Amino acid sequence: MKYKAEVNVMPLKALLDPQGKAVEARLHNMGVKDVRNVRIGKHITLEVEASDEKKAAAIVEKACKDLLHNPIMESYEYKIEKA
Amino acid sequence: MKYKAEVNVMPLKALLDPQGKAVEARLHNMGVKDVRNVRIGKHITLEVEASDEKKAAAIVEKACKDLLHNPIMESYEYKIEKA
Repeated sequence: MKYKAEVNVMPLKALLDPQGKAVEARLHNMGVKDVRNVRIGKHITLEVEASDEKKAAAIVEKACKDLLHNPIMESYEYKIEKA
Repeated sequence: MKYKAEVNVMPLKALLDPQGKAVEARLHNMGVKDVRNVRIGKHITLEVEASDEKKAAAIVEKACKDLLHNPIMESYEYKIEKA
């Protein structure tokens, strides 16, 4: 079965996110004032071939743990659906 | 009212995504073989202060159009919910 996974990797809440701060300041300068707490991370989409959803989740989990996120400064979440 | 928006900015489907290709190759080298079509973009979360959801959407739309995405190589999508 083919599954489609969407992974979000975000800077940990406890950390300052300078990229987000820069975008927020720029938005305010552009006149978009009512925006706060901008945080910027990565959005990763991938296709997984697996016999069931649990196995697909295990593959995505391994990819997140071992490659996609840096545990010192990022957290991740994902969702999986049938492609 | 306070709304929370989640924006995904992704490389256009028609374009090669070298970052995604690099991650895919690395996953294959690591033994995670059943993964294909990895694409990497940005995930942006922000809080919007607006009187209703339609106005919040207009603010997010403007932020996406004018700052967050590069129309030549990226597309965007977002969803908004009450914070």
